[in-house]
Amino acid sequence: MRTSARNHFTGQIAAVKAGAVNDEITLRADGGLEIVAIITHGSAASLGLAAGKPAFALVKASSVIVMVDADASKVSTRNVISGTVASVTKGAVNAEVVITAPGGAQVAAIVTNESADRLGLAAGKTAAALFKASSVIIGVDA
Amino acid sequence: MRTSARNHFTGQIAAVKAGAVNDEITLRADGGLEIVAIITHGSAASLGLAAGKPAFALVKASSVIVMVDADASKVSTRNVISGTVASVTKGAVNAEVVITAPGGAQVAAIVTNESADRLGLAAGKTAAALFKASSVIIGVDA
Amino acid sequence: MRTSARNHFTGQIAAVKAGAVNDEITLRADGGLEIVAIITHGSAASLGLAAGKPAFALVKASSVIVMVDADASKVSTRNVISGTVASVTKGAVNAEVVITAPGGAQVAAIVTNESADRLGLAAGKTAAALFKASSVIIGVDA
Repeated sequence: MRTSARNHFTGQIAAVKAGAVNDEITLRADGGLEIVAIITHGSAASLGLAAGKPAFALVKASSVIVMVDADASKVSTRNVISGTVASVTKGAVNAEVVITAPGGAQVAAIVTNESADRLGLAAGKTAAALFKASSVIIGVDA
Repeated sequence: MRTSARNHFTGQIAAVKAGAVNDEITLRADGGLEIVAIITHGSAASLGLAAGKPAFALVKASSVIVMVDADASKVSTRNVISGTVASVTKGAVNAEVVITAPGGAQVAAIVTNESADRLGLAAGKTAAALFKASSVIIGVDA
Repeated sequence: MRTSARNHFTGQIAAVKAGAVNDEITLRADGGLEIVAIITHGSAASLGLAAGKPAFALVKASSVIVMVDADASKVSTRNVISGTVASVTKGAVNAEVVITAPGGAQVAAIVTNESADRLGLAAGKTAAALFKASSVIIGVDA
């Protein structure tokens, strides 16, 4: 399974909370990260998601927000990965920012150049990657 | 109705599954594609969505993921459109990838250049466009 | 709290509608804008969201669609902000479009150049910014 999603976390399902239309899925990724996803109940059922099942999570770089004075308790995003900026690659309008978490996991974000400048993003700076549970895709290998 | 959304599918509502906060809407698009959307129950009610009603679906190119060895049964994205890459247009950071489905429908995706290179995306290559039901906007013309 | 999200609206919570997995939150932003967000019930609970609580809403520019013949009754996006194009900044693939609402609030959108050209977006033109409730992040300062 190869996709364009820059962010790919492998691990196993830790919890499934079912709703009428949407389910909330928690994936415990290798390295200890916990990723929360909101997917339709139909998808969760057809993938056979249940605690302990190996699975992976995909997140597009364009769905990731970068925050520089992160306080996870203050925002609604269920996924907050704190770390250090590894690189900032600028285009004419957008910049790609890669953040490395303490355990070595990397998260790529696409932000506007204006935002990268305003936040003073540069290699070595402390920053966090935020993404909504609704931006996460869950997959299984078999 | 003219919007910046690169992907616009016209058709009619095939099903509405109601929840407390969100509804799941299935649109049967011209050419046979089925598009699944998650929208708030308030929106579905105010648009008067019901089976048989003409409607359209909008999807931003930045919400679309490209997959090169697609197996729709293995990912949670409700929308998987398989086809052939028609074009790849690169910028400094992002590339626009257009995929043509067998029925002629086209889907545009914005991915990072790194992803386009990693997947070897080029005109003629088999690929699929994936997008979450929560990334789909539903509209009606009257 | 400083983030890369180009769109940051401060105000107070006007309403919380609870579901099993997701809650629908309405924020009345300074200047009178009403922003609707879908967040997980777990997030709403941990943030202590209730009517009257000061809060803010974040929206990534890449989650915003631009419409030139806006009719809010015709699309499922809960958030439609009409105004005038303040600027269009083009890159190789994407363009950043800033729309100013009558009250002075500004919304930034990232769209493809192809879309900006097709819609004839230019400073002074009437346009609307649309974004889904599921694209909105809610935060609190304390």
